[in-house]
Amino acid sequence: MTVAELGEHALIARIRARLPAAPAFVVVGIGDDAAVLEPERNALEVITTDSQVEGVHFDFAFCSAADVGHKALAVNLSDIAAMGASPRIALLSLVLPPAWPAVDVDALVDSMAALAARAKVSIVGGNIARSPGPLVVDLTVTGSVHRRRVLTRSGGRAGDDLYVTGSLGGAALGLQLLQANHGDTSTAAERYRRPEPRLRFGILLGRNRAARACVDLSDGLGDGVRQIGEASGVGAVIDASAVPIERGATLVDALSGGEDYELLFAVSPKLRRRLDGVRRLTKDLAVTRIGRLTADRAFLLERDGRTEKLPRGFVHFGH
Amino acid sequence: MTVAELGEHALIARIRARLPAAPAFVVVGIGDDAAVLEPERNALEVITTDSQVEGVHFDFAFCSAADVGHKALAVNLSDIAAMGASPRIALLSLVLPPAWPAVDVDALVDSMAALAARAKVSIVGGNIARSPGPLVVDLTVTGSVHRRRVLTRSGGRAGDDLYVTGSLGGAALGLQLLQANHGDTSTAAERYRRPEPRLRFGILLGRNRAARACVDLSDGLGDGVRQIGEASGVGAVIDASAVPIERGATLVDALSGGEDYELLFAVSPKLRRRLDGVRRLTKDLAVTRIGRLTADRAFLLERDGRTEKLPRGFVHFGH
Repeated sequence: MTVAELGEHALIARIRARLPAAPAFVVVGIGDDAAVLEPERNALEVITTDSQVEGVHFDFAFCSAADVGHKALAVNLSDIAAMGASPRIALLSLVLPPAWPAVDVDALVDSMAALAARAKVSIVGGNIARSPGPLVVDLTVTGSVHRRRVLTRSGGRAGDDLYVTGSLGGAALGLQLLQANHGDTSTAAERYRRPEPRLRFGILLGRNRAARACVDLSDGLGDGVRQIGEASGVGAVIDASAVPIERGATLVDALSGGEDYELLFAVSPKLRRRLDGVRRLTKDLAVTRIGRLTADRAFLLERDGRTEKLPRGFVHFGH
Repeated sequence: MTVAELGEHALIARIRARLPAAPAFVVVGIGDDAAVLEPERNALEVITTDSQVEGVHFDFAFCSAADVGHKALAVNLSDIAAMGASPRIALLSLVLPPAWPAVDVDALVDSMAALAARAKVSIVGGNIARSPGPLVVDLTVTGSVHRRRVLTRSGGRAGDDLYVTGSLGGAALGLQLLQANHGDTSTAAERYRRPEPRLRFGILLGRNRAARACVDLSDGLGDGVRQIGEASGVGAVIDASAVPIERGATLVDALSGGEDYELLFAVSPKLRRRLDGVRRLTKDLAVTRIGRLTADRAFLLERDGRTEKLPRGFVHFGH
């Protein structure tokens, strides 16, 4: 059955039926003009989303509908994690081609709901629009965090050490492998198709006040380092030999490939014990020191005993 | 200069520069992974949005970039108005073709910012993604409302009178006129291109507790009446001769055309004085009684002395 055959209202009901019951703080969930939340007693929060689309299309050459559903939520959760926040609610905006099979919508929603359940985020509303072309999935997520625990990108200072979680370049390698072989099932391909947001690590990093600045690496290390440096008014030196690179990937993949969704953060050497506390609680996740912030506002890469300009990250609007 | 020539970061900076300074409750605005708000003291709210797009396109045959910017916000504000809420913040998610002129982005943002200023809503963040095809504009808006003043669609009861603001069918007529003549400058065309969300009316309706149920008419009266009726477990009878129709438009335009963004709401006859109070404060806006909710769960139209089934609203995924 296609989306067109099902119709909008049936489609919303179908999606709603596939989601768990909303928690008590959701006063009005899916099915009204907007979602209504009660984060504090008698102080409601209303949230809504909508899209204006003229034509769209989506390429499923090497990503399933389930991959798209997972990734659309994961990239948002990664942003929430980078703020040290706990995700609370998500809004799903779908722009759907009428001929798209309803089972693909099911697969997308199921996959998204599975990640949402693990991340304890509730999908409370959204919007469905028709697409004369391909699919667009747009998500909004809210999170909560105590004021003194929030992680921004602007708090770094010269002398802070820079760390990353996990390993880098895997998503870029995975994309290359999938482009060459659509059925590739390598770890790298999995990293590209199903990124894992570092929610618990980000929350602990904020809770322990271990980091002065933090971003998620959506556009590569070269971009992330500049984001923290420029927002903090400092420069940085990265040690190429220290960068944790996914097996089979290259330094270029790590610096400019993007889509790894690991966390990059700055830690005062004096506060390293706080970071040690976080690491003890997240033993499965590698944490690697890769460089430091500098008073000199240049972004540099130390490589084979020479210092060069740090390559830029992934460019979305490339020439 | 094209979007591609400008690059993502310059584009974000350019958009940021065109927006007014964020209010005090915005702890972190545009430029970080997520926006951070402080709706209540020491209780922050974090909000973010993102999109996953493979291919997109937009048709500007008879809508300018400024029209798209206005409308993308207006349709969201209309949802907020229909809840009786005061809009607070908006997130703008743009999926942009690399070759799109940057001046069109400016026009879109300026137009959106102008409506945002009038509506006292702050655009605090968003996302930009590249589109291999056309433009998609996706917006998220939050609002606040006191718990006892929120307007949902489910509170209607048999015997309640149904009212609409403004006149209906104008947007559908405007679309027809614009399709025939791309340069049409009629009032109806303006209603299609630049809908005016009924924010003040919705807020007053909630504040005075004058309405038991409310929706905005995004998909025509035939849809809106069913939304309230089905959510409230009642039926409705609409008096065709009472429906306020835009000059030149037809009853079909009003019932099934959609995109008028007027408010439809149910009022207990006993509470009509509360509605009179709202009307005195919003004299420029017509408010018309068009029918009533019924215990019989059918949706009917009384027309020329005969009773027929109420036509459905606009169908997004039509066959």
